[in-house]
Amino acid sequence: MSKPIRVIQYGLGAIGCASARLALSRPGIQLVGAIDRDPKLTGKDLGEVLGLQRKLDIAVTDKPVILFAQTQADAVVHCTTSSFVEAYEQLTEIVRAGLHCVTSCEEALFPYYRHKLLAGKLDDLCIQKSVAVVGTGVNPGFVMDTLALLLTMACQRIDAVRVLRVVDAATRREALQRKVGATMTKAQFDDLNQQRKIGHVGLAESLVFLADGLGWALDKLNESVAPVLARKTVKTEFLTVSKGSMAGVHQFARGIRGGKEVLTLELQMYVGAPHPRDQIEIIGEPPLRLVLEGGVPGDIATPAILVNTLPRLVEGRPGLHTMRTLGLPRMTL
Amino acid sequence: MSKPIRVIQYGLGAIGCASARLALSRPGIQLVGAIDRDPKLTGKDLGEVLGLQRKLDIAVTDKPVILFAQTQADAVVHCTTSSFVEAYEQLTEIVRAGLHCVTSCEEALFPYYRHKLLAGKLDDLCIQKSVAVVGTGVNPGFVMDTLALLLTMACQRIDAVRVLRVVDAATRREALQRKVGATMTKAQFDDLNQQRKIGHVGLAESLVFLADGLGWALDKLNESVAPVLARKTVKTEFLTVSKGSMAGVHQFARGIRGGKEVLTLELQMYVGAPHPRDQIEIIGEPPLRLVLEGGVPGDIATPAILVNTLPRLVEGRPGLHTMRTLGLPRMTL
Repeated sequence: MSKPIRVIQYGLGAIGCASARLALSRPGIQLVGAIDRDPKLTGKDLGEVLGLQRKLDIAVTDKPVILFAQTQADAVVHCTTSSFVEAYEQLTEIVRAGLHCVTSCEEALFPYYRHKLLAGKLDDLCIQKSVAVVGTGVNPGFVMDTLALLLTMACQRIDAVRVLRVVDAATRREALQRKVGATMTKAQFDDLNQQRKIGHVGLAESLVFLADGLGWALDKLNESVAPVLARKTVKTEFLTVSKGSMAGVHQFARGIRGGKEVLTLELQMYVGAPHPRDQIEIIGEPPLRLVLEGGVPGDIATPAILVNTLPRLVEGRPGLHTMRTLGLPRMTL
Repeated sequence: MSKPIRVIQYGLGAIGCASARLALSRPGIQLVGAIDRDPKLTGKDLGEVLGLQRKLDIAVTDKPVILFAQTQADAVVHCTTSSFVEAYEQLTEIVRAGLHCVTSCEEALFPYYRHKLLAGKLDDLCIQKSVAVVGTGVNPGFVMDTLALLLTMACQRIDAVRVLRVVDAATRREALQRKVGATMTKAQFDDLNQQRKIGHVGLAESLVFLADGLGWALDKLNESVAPVLARKTVKTEFLTVSKGSMAGVHQFARGIRGGKEVLTLELQMYVGAPHPRDQIEIIGEPPLRLVLEGGVPGDIATPAILVNTLPRLVEGRPGLHTMRTLGLPRMTL
């Protein structure tokens, strides 16, 4: 990379701020703008918002279209929502401005699954404007999908792929502990579960990404979320989960093909979960079993994956990508 | 894939035959020709050479240019040599015939390292003829390089990458047991080592591929090969290594950058090696440690990786590729 990639940070939640801080540390990246709709942040200097000891001369704005028109930029790191429909208008504004975009939006990992029409339209727009857009992160985006898909490369035959991610939510940020339902009552869980508003978003996307990458047409995809109750009282930096109350979630996505369960993604994400790890098992020839002891820590790895994707966008073909259609995902400075 | 990929198998050693057998089992691939220079094989039906109970109506030939001219084909699986210089003329003939090619030639994993000029010329020819060529396999090609490079994606900062592959050569084919020096004397080892004719070829290529993928300019690359002597007598299917005689090799490639060892590839490959595994460790933020218990078995995985690469060539951009410039490596039927 001879010229630095000029980047706008869109969304200044925990992951957005961490991405901006990481971008600032990279010689190949120049941070040139920041967007957030929170009135408590707009107008402030980004350095202050990020908790730095210095000004960055970047004022946070809630007017993306004006910022795009007035700023020389190459790409956007977008961290505002899990929902592709909610992200859609923001993404089209980014693309219309001729900017590449990497988004942490979980449903954008494989947007063709839930929102085929919108994804197709965004792909057309990307090609028209000659920019690349991709959704990624640590999960979805890396441990349960891209890494598992790469591992299939070594196989002559695959009967099934099983991925297990165990996250001790106590080690994660408060928003995530709340998101997985820690301290919630059964009634609150049931209510949110009915609205599909509890637990990790993106397990089905990871599964469909895997099936598509393997060229497998699935007959059925089953998803389930169950509450995990604390076996003993656990205190985190942010909250206390009493024995018997909700500590988090246990989720599955299962892909059925020819009457058999060929893809199984299992996620245990709760306060106090023992033996955190990422584990990928291939039942086939040869059988393979990959383990990342401790698991890939999401709060550090997600900003890394977003920022590490930027060079791939700039050098990639225009279009709405998935993690398998850009060059090999990797860190480059 | 709507139309099958029509493939010619070039080289009918152990890996070549295994690749041909695997290709035959894949609905997306049609085997249309076979080449070997061994006079004991030429003229024979490929079914017989592969030990099948049926004829394939493919006669093995030692005349590649004539075969290419007379056969409707899309791609070649090339398994003849570890040396890029030795492979070069065969590869240019393949490319001139307008055929894509995946080769198990170890030095072709990153041919720009030892043979920059020849690699550049082959790249030009690929672009002129609109075909893609890549060198790959399990090692080099997958466990010590591509997989390690993908893992860097999850990191904010990397201080060093250490990869260890332990192979119990007793579980591998006879040619490999001989290649790593099992039953050799010290004098034979020293003699072959001076000629760079002992041990695994490709460790330096894996290291340079990693450095290039990370955007790291190395000050120095050190390689070493040492003999491993058997602590007790070990009998394999093919040979007996007596206590105190040579069981195989212990190799290192080390990459130095800014005075520090930032890349370490260690390969233990000998008859009786305990605790076979592939292990990738990243020292950085976050630190990561990936383990494949038992290790990826080369004799099964190398044909898999060659055959699984074929769809990537057909859909990829023309040129002499590396494993990071085609779409994400994966199995597709």
